Parts: sequence; C-alpha cells; structure tokens
Amino acid sequence: MSYMKKGDTRLLFLPLGGSGEIGMNLNLYGHTGKWLMVDCGMSFADNYLPGVDLVFPDPEFIEDEQDDLIGLVLTHGHEDHIGAVPYLWERFQCPVYATPFTAELVKGKLKEAGILDQVPLHVVEAHQKIDLEPFEVTYVPLAHSIAEGHGLAIKTSRGTIFHTGDWKLDDRPLIGPACPSPVLSALGEAGVLALVGDSTNVFNPSESGSEAAVRESLKEIVADMKNRVVITTFASNVARLETIGEVAKATGRRLVLLGRSMERVVKAAMETGYLRDFPPIVDEADADYLPKDEVLIACTGCQGEPRAAIARIARDDHKHLQLSPDDNVIFSSKIIPGNELVLGQLFNQLAVKGVNVVTEKDAFVHVSGHPGRAELAKMYEWTKPHVAIPVHGEARHLLRHAKLAKELGVEHTIVPKNGDVIEISEKGVRLVDEAPFGRLVLDGTEIVQFEDAAIADRRRAAHNGFVSVSLVFDDDGALAAEPLIAPLGLPNSDDGGFYDGMIDAVETAFERMSANDRQADVFVEEAVRIGIRRFCRREIGKNPGVAVLINRRDEIEFN
Amino acid sequence: MSYMKKGDTRLLFLPLGGSGEIGMNLNLYGHTGKWLMVDCGMSFADNYLPGVDLVFPDPEFIEDEQDDLIGLVLTHGHEDHIGAVPYLWERFQCPVYATPFTAELVKGKLKEAGILDQVPLHVVEAHQKIDLEPFEVTYVPLAHSIAEGHGLAIKTSRGTIFHTGDWKLDDRPLIGPACPSPVLSALGEAGVLALVGDSTNVFNPSESGSEAAVRESLKEIVADMKNRVVITTFASNVARLETIGEVAKATGRRLVLLGRSMERVVKAAMETGYLRDFPPIVDEADADYLPKDEVLIACTGCQGEPRAAIARIARDDHKHLQLSPDDNVIFSSKIIPGNELVLGQLFNQLAVKGVNVVTEKDAFVHVSGHPGRAELAKMYEWTKPHVAIPVHGEARHLLRHAKLAKELGVEHTIVPKNGDVIEISEKGVRLVDEAPFGRLVLDGTEIVQFEDAAIADRRRAAHNGFVSVSLVFDDDGALAAEPLIAPLGLPNSDDGGFYDGMIDAVETAFERMSANDRQADVFVEEAVRIGIRRFCRREIGKNPGVAVLINRRDEIEFN
Repeated sequence: MSYMKKGDTRLLFLPLGGSGEIGMNLNLYGHTGKWLMVDCGMSFADNYLPGVDLVFPDPEFIEDEQDDLIGLVLTHGHEDHIGAVPYLWERFQCPVYATPFTAELVKGKLKEAGILDQVPLHVVEAHQKIDLEPFEVTYVPLAHSIAEGHGLAIKTSRGTIFHTGDWKLDDRPLIGPACPSPVLSALGEAGVLALVGDSTNVFNPSESGSEAAVRESLKEIVADMKNRVVITTFASNVARLETIGEVAKATGRRLVLLGRSMERVVKAAMETGYLRDFPPIVDEADADYLPKDEVLIACTGCQGEPRAAIARIARDDHKHLQLSPDDNVIFSSKIIPGNELVLGQLFNQLAVKGVNVVTEKDAFVHVSGHPGRAELAKMYEWTKPHVAIPVHGEARHLLRHAKLAKELGVEHTIVPKNGDVIEISEKGVRLVDEAPFGRLVLDGTEIVQFEDAAIADRRRAAHNGFVSVSLVFDDDGALAAEPLIAPLGLPNSDDGGFYDGMIDAVETAFERMSANDRQADVFVEEAVRIGIRRFCRREIGKNPGVAVLINRRDEIEFN
Repeated sequence: MSYMKKGDTRLLFLPLGGSGEIGMNLNLYGHTGKWLMVDCGMSFADNYLPGVDLVFPDPEFIEDEQDDLIGLVLTHGHEDHIGAVPYLWERFQCPVYATPFTAELVKGKLKEAGILDQVPLHVVEAHQKIDLEPFEVTYVPLAHSIAEGHGLAIKTSRGTIFHTGDWKLDDRPLIGPACPSPVLSALGEAGVLALVGDSTNVFNPSESGSEAAVRESLKEIVADMKNRVVITTFASNVARLETIGEVAKATGRRLVLLGRSMERVVKAAMETGYLRDFPPIVDEADADYLPKDEVLIACTGCQGEPRAAIARIARDDHKHLQLSPDDNVIFSSKIIPGNELVLGQLFNQLAVKGVNVVTEKDAFVHVSGHPGRAELAKMYEWTKPHVAIPVHGEARHLLRHAKLAKELGVEHTIVPKNGDVIEISEKGVRLVDEAPFGRLVLDGTEIVQFEDAAIADRRRAAHNGFVSVSLVFDDDGALAAEPLIAPLGLPNSDDGGFYDGMIDAVETAFERMSANDRQADVFVEEAVRIGIRRFCRREIGKNPGVAVLINRRDEIEFN
C-alpha cells in the first residue's frame, strides 16, 4: 500500500470519478490506513462509445485496498451517485449507507442485479452520526432535485470535511427540511477543515430558485390551459411530482402517471413517507377517455429518451395516450447539454401535431438543483472552511469554483483531477500522489475498459467499413481458389466492377509476395490488408478494417 | 411532366431542402413549364451517419426536368445555400447566378471539384434585374452574417414572390448597405403575392442587433484585456472580420490570421472590394514572437471543429501558436445546437491552460444573422404579402412563423414540407402535388442515398459488432476443416472459451441442417448467422452482423 500506511495520520482525498466531468461520482477519503467511499455513480455513454450504454469509474484502486475500505456512504439517489453500485459493488464489497428513500432506490437496483441479499445496506436518518472509525459521518439534509439530498460532515482526528453532495438552498423545498443554515453555521463554528463541493452551476451568478415558486407558477400556467396537459420531468424529483399532484388538485384535473420509472419512484416515495397527500392516480389505460380539460398526465422522458413515455406519445407509439391539436406538453426540466438535438426533434414532432409545447425557455416551469454563485457564497460564509476542493464539474467549472472560493476568502484551494491523491491539512492542501484511475463501460452485458479494443474496432468500422476475405492455400503457397470477399458498409460495393477490383487487389498483393512469405499467415494478412485498403481509399475514399481468414491445405481434409 | 405543363400558368413553389430543417436549402419555383432553382446547399452529417461528411438534398426531381431548368440563383455564400453546387451541379446542369463575393466563393469550390470551366457562372450586382423568362429576378441586398446576403424579388405573370434568403435588419451592418426599407416598401406597394422567408430565429421575440454594436463592445472588451487575445468566428462573416481588424487598430494590436478558411475568405473579400482598410496581416509564423499585449489573433473553429485552428491551439497542436496562462480567447459566435458538448470540451481545454474564455453567454460578443419576431413584423409591414410561406426552419420554427404571419394580418399561409408542390395565387396557397425528394450523402468519395444499406450496416456494426466466418465444404456437404471465425468489436471475444463457443455454435448450427440444405449457400449462411447471433446475445448481450464465406470443394483446385 504505497498511498497510505497504517500509522499514516494524514487526511487524504482521492476522487476516482466526478472531478473534471459531470457524472459518475466516486470519491475516497483516506485516514490512518482506512478508506471511506462517498458515492458510486455512473454516466450514460455518448456517441464516442457506439453500442455502449453505461460508463463507470474504474474502482481498481479501491479493489486492491478493499480490506481497508470501511464503507460506502451515498449522499442521494441520482444515477450519477448510486448508478454504479449494482455493477461494481462485488469488486470492492463493503457496507453501504443511505437514507431511507435513497436506500429504497438502491434496493430496487440490487434486486434487479440479483445481489440484494449480498450487500449489507444500512439505512440511516438525517442528522444521524455513523461511526466508521476513523471517520465519523453525519448526514446533513440539503435541498436538491431529488428527495433526501445530503451533505456529509466527515469528522476525523485531523479535522472535519464537509462534503456537500449535490445541493441548493431552498427556503421552501416542499420535500425535506428548509435550508439548515443553523446546522451549517454550527459546523462552521466548530471548524471545517475543508469543503468538498458541487461546482455544476458555478457559472450561474444568482440563486437557483425555490421549488415553491415553481409550484405556484405551474398552477397558474396549467389553470390557463385548455385540453390535455402533460408534464414531463425527472421521475426522481419527488418534490416536483408532489408539485404536479398539487397542480392537479388546484386545477381540478385528475392525475395519470406514465412511464416505468415514474411508477417506481412514486412507489419508493410513498413507502418512505413522501407524497402523503398525493391525489388518487387514474389508471393509465383510462388516460385517453377522460375529458380533455380534466386530465393532467405526468410522464417520463424529459431529456428525449427514445423509449420513454413522452417520446412514444410524440411519435404516436404510446398504447394509452394519443395527443390532439391544442393539447399541451410542459417540459418541467432543464435541457441537459448534449440533448438539444434530440429534444428539438421531440418538440418538432409535438408541434406538427398542433400540440402547445412549453419549456424552461418559454416560462417558469423549472428550477435547478445545484447552487449558483450566490448560494455558494452563503455556504462558504456559513461553513468558513480552511480549504475548498471543488468537485462535481468539468475542468472549467472546478476552476471557476476555486476562483470563487478564493474571492470569498478561503485560504487554500486545489482543483482535483480523477486519480489525484490530495493531502488536506491545517497547512493547506497539496497533491501528494497519483492513484490508478480510469473508466469502465457496460458493452452489451460485459464490463470492459473504456479503451477496449472491441469498441475502437467498432468505431473504425462505423466510419470506414470492414472487409472479410477468405483464402484457400495449396501446400506450395499458391491460391487454390478465387478469394472470397465480403465487404461490410462500403458505399457502391455492390457494383460488380468494385468487387472484381477487390479480387484483383488481393491477387496482386499476393502475387508480389515471395513463396516463403506466403507460408506465413501474418505476412499474408498484412499484404492483403494493405492491398484492400489501398484499393478502397482510391476507389471510394474509405479505409476499412480487414479480416483475412486463411485455410491451408494441411488443415483441410476432403474425403 | 406531371407537375406542370407548358401551357400551365400556375405559379408553383417546391422546396426540396430546407423546409422542416435548418440546413441544405434548395427551393424551386415553377411557372409556364419552366423551373427556377434558388440556392443549393448542404448540411453536415451527424452521428446517425457515421463516416459520412456531408448531406445534400436529392435533386432527382429537377434532374428529370433539367431541360426546363432556367437557372440557379444563389442568395448568399453560406454552405447551407451553396455547398452542394460542386457535388450536384453535373446532375442538373444550368446557368448559375451570384453576386461577386458569393461567386468568388463558388468559384473556389468549383475549381476544387475540377468543374470550374464547365459551369456557366454569371456575376450579378445588387438591384440588378436578371431576365430568366418566365421569371424576372432582382437581387435585394439584406444584412446577414456574411457579406452580400440577398433577398430575391421574383416577378412572374401571376405576381411577385419575395424570397428573403437569410436576413436580418441592421441599420449599421458595416459591410453592405443599411437596411433597404424603401426598397422593401416599394416592393410592397407594387404588390407582393407571396413572401417566402427565413424562420430560423422566430423564437427570438426581439431584434437580432447590429454589427456596429458588437464592434463597439469588442473594442471595449479587448481594450481591457492583457496578454494575447484570440477571437474565433465564422470566417465567412466578413463584417466581423472587418470588426476584428478595427478592434486590432483601436487597441494597438497587430493582426494575425490562423486557419485556411480565414485566409480564403479574406482573399475573396479583398478581391471583391471588401476589407479595404484592413490592417496589415502579420505572418502566422511570427504569432508566437510578438509581445503578448500587442497581438490579436483571428482564427477559425468557433464551433469546435477538431481540425480548425482554435481546437489545435487548445490541444497544443498548432505549429505557430501556444497560449499561456492569462491569454484570452473570445468566441465571437453563436453556440449552434448540437455543438454544446464539443465546445464544452474546448472551453475546458482552454480553462485548464489558465486561458480566459469569453463566449456569447459571458459578454456581448456576437449578434445573430437571422430575424427575430420584431424584425419579421417590420418585414411584413413593409412588403405586405398576400401569402406567407415560412422556410429555413424545423417544423416548430415554420409553424411559429406561420402563426406570426397570421397575427400580423397576412391572409394566407402554408407550412411546407420538402417535396410539397404548392400553388400560389391571388386566391391563396394550397398543396397541389408531391414531388420526389430525399437526401444524398457523401460517404467517402461516393454520393449515395441517405438510406444506403452500407451506412445502415456500419451503424449496426458500430453497436453490435460483426463476425466473419470462413467454411470449407466437402462434396458431400460435410465441413472439411474447422470453421475459421474473426470477431470484430465483440467485448471479451479474445477469451479462448468465447472463441470455442462460437466454433461450437457454428458446428451445431451446421449439424442440425439436412445434407440437402448444406448444399445451398443461402441456407448455410442463414443457419450460421442465427447460431452466431444467438450465442453472442446469450454470452455478451450483442447481436452482431455475420458474413459467411463458403468455399466448396468444386471451386478449390489443389495441384
């Protein structure tokens, strides 16, 4: 263990995910030979990873240290904080801690993964202290765009870390306690060595706004609407779901829920004591039969996910609901960067139907769950940390957050990268080592490295196509049959002349080889590959991958 | 010719591109048996088309009518209006008309394509009438984000169309004449049958703003900056280039240009009489040696194009310029939807270097080239068209534009889709027919259909991988050798057990076939394909494409 020894009393911070990116948070704190993991999230793959669904931080470092991993504490239930648990837990195996609603979501995932009975999952309450020697962890409730967002006060012999998790300030969050400024001030008075915190919205100079204000605004907006009203939002935003329930009641509309995750979250929320005043839910099969002015439909898909309810509705592919002209769809959500085009298509599909589309750009229908600079300033004022470590952001967010912390009088800051081993002390903060880090991806059902050759091969094939060649060789290294060639994804390759040209290219490549070289598969493969690629580049401007399958006489047995 | 007969005096409008999308504009007007083409643009391919660079409207309809195609009139020089000319012109062959700067850009493209001497390219001046019987076309200069934006007044025996092209109102456009409201009012007084116009910015309620105001703002912003200043913008925005020249002069900085398209546009602009007061340009090789406070660098790549200058600079891959902490990069441009992520990465790379990044979100450094609703209202007030046909927008833009036109008192509107044959008359506007339309793409060096099977095959391979199988059969239909298998892009397929499993799957599939079926390649292929796919789905959750290359004894000649 090169990073920390048993007698090592330093306090270390090591992010394996979430520092330099928004998504897949995984943070480690090290002290006196033990490690504490905070969150274990995932990201969704982009087009750079065709055929890949999910991306995880590589937990290799902590796998090697798992005997000293004291526990995994989860701040809240968003996928970028809990999503990797069912995929990675078996690699590092440790007790898991979460508050009731978060635990309920995690349980569902572990059950689906078939490991619910293996994982020691401990439910903790807000303000509860948990003893994870050498760490004492207290859950501090903070508002966020999901029920039960929490910061963690992590007390050690070297001082207290306040790890904010994802948060905002909200005097009227409607779900959960109002802004716990006295708790934060008390923390600050007791002394916060370091604040490790959310940088997502640091480019927003003002405050994120209150859920209560959205609730009032949505009531007014929906009250003015005729015909059907559909509201799509993140299912996990329980306060927003409650808001939609209240809007339904206030506007005399009956509530329908569409989408699997919507039902799952409502169930988890109700089981953990939320949504007590939720209106009765009308069966989705009846959605289409209710009078248009008397229905409010909450549904999934606010980011344009193609299989979610609103996307199905937009393309007339939903089994229970078909929208008509002058119906309304409210996107009560942020347009997450990267989703603009797919959401634009969805807006077009709805507009073509004559549906009135309302987004955050048109009206006040959403507030963010992350702190703008005004809220960050208050947080620093209350907690008065000696050190600020921005996390949960891309490089520019972390840099801006560090600058802000400096401006607010924080003495020491550092901008971490995944893999940085950072020592935090009264003297400040410094990079002391680098740990192995990386990304894993879920490719089909396999968890492989981000850099896996199979994915790179697919990416190449996606751009340049692929050619399979089968050759049969005689004992003397002469071709015993015409080469067989199967081009994949090459434009105009069904043209007869093109196929003959490839045959010629292979035969020419082969003719130029010495009799000796023809006996070696690697040389034959290389020559054929070069011949095919050169031909394709010249003829069609493509540089395909090539597989050469070589049958030699001594492996063939004719009877 | 089913759409129009020689004696047919109807006035027809037929968009083949740009109606229902932003990009690749191609519009046709038909009258008395003749067609006039307005613009011939291209789009850039997205991730749905891996390996494809460019997308064009399919000109099939007008290819068939080319004897009656009287000419192609180009409104301005942006790629979405001229980009397809070098790729498609040979298909419909007609005279091309453009104003000097646009013509200069087109010439460059035709030269590159090797067809400059074939294309009759006529240079016309603003306000010039060109007689393209039965159409009389007058170029009406309008401000836009490129030099020489033009609307077209198209006079016919049935009335006058005002085809706006891309436009904005700008009292001080700095390049080109100020807003020609008297010309537009005169058009309106003479009578405009239909306005066919730009819908891009219809969701902007206000005005797009003046280039002069950007110039003043940039002067102030740059005057306050220390160290190097880099400004990246669209090269084709000649007014912005002039602005950058003026900013250099006003702030005592020397001007460097980086990027091929920047140099090409400056050359075209100077050759057609623009940028007469441009400051001397310092050789790019000297960019790094000038005192940091005395240099202003204009460069390409404002949309994050990976091979453009600013992207190279950001990744320290530019041969002449390396930025240092506290240098400045201004993105004097819009963040085009779809480019958020790649631009975010670029901002991160610059931020990590300590470079100060300024975008349109941070300061007033850009104005749009398309009209907001305030400008559209003025245009309708001046031209008073009988009919409004919104083009140059996605469905939601066109619908909103049509709604606005109604609100502004225009009697008749229609929302066109590509391929719609629309009759325009005093009685109004109506869909009378549908013409063939579609998209072509540039795949490698080949122009193929958007739906080309090769692209679909690549997309499938990108997600699910591909397997090549080579089989050698004896005369009796028995395998004469162990199958050879080359998996492409399958996770964990280098595992020995996986390979053996695939061999088993192939052999099992084969064993289940009757001796007769084994003699037919199609049956063998199908059985092997199903066996491989079933195995891969079960083992790794992938459903690959499969090529089966079958060698039969009677095609093999051993000596």
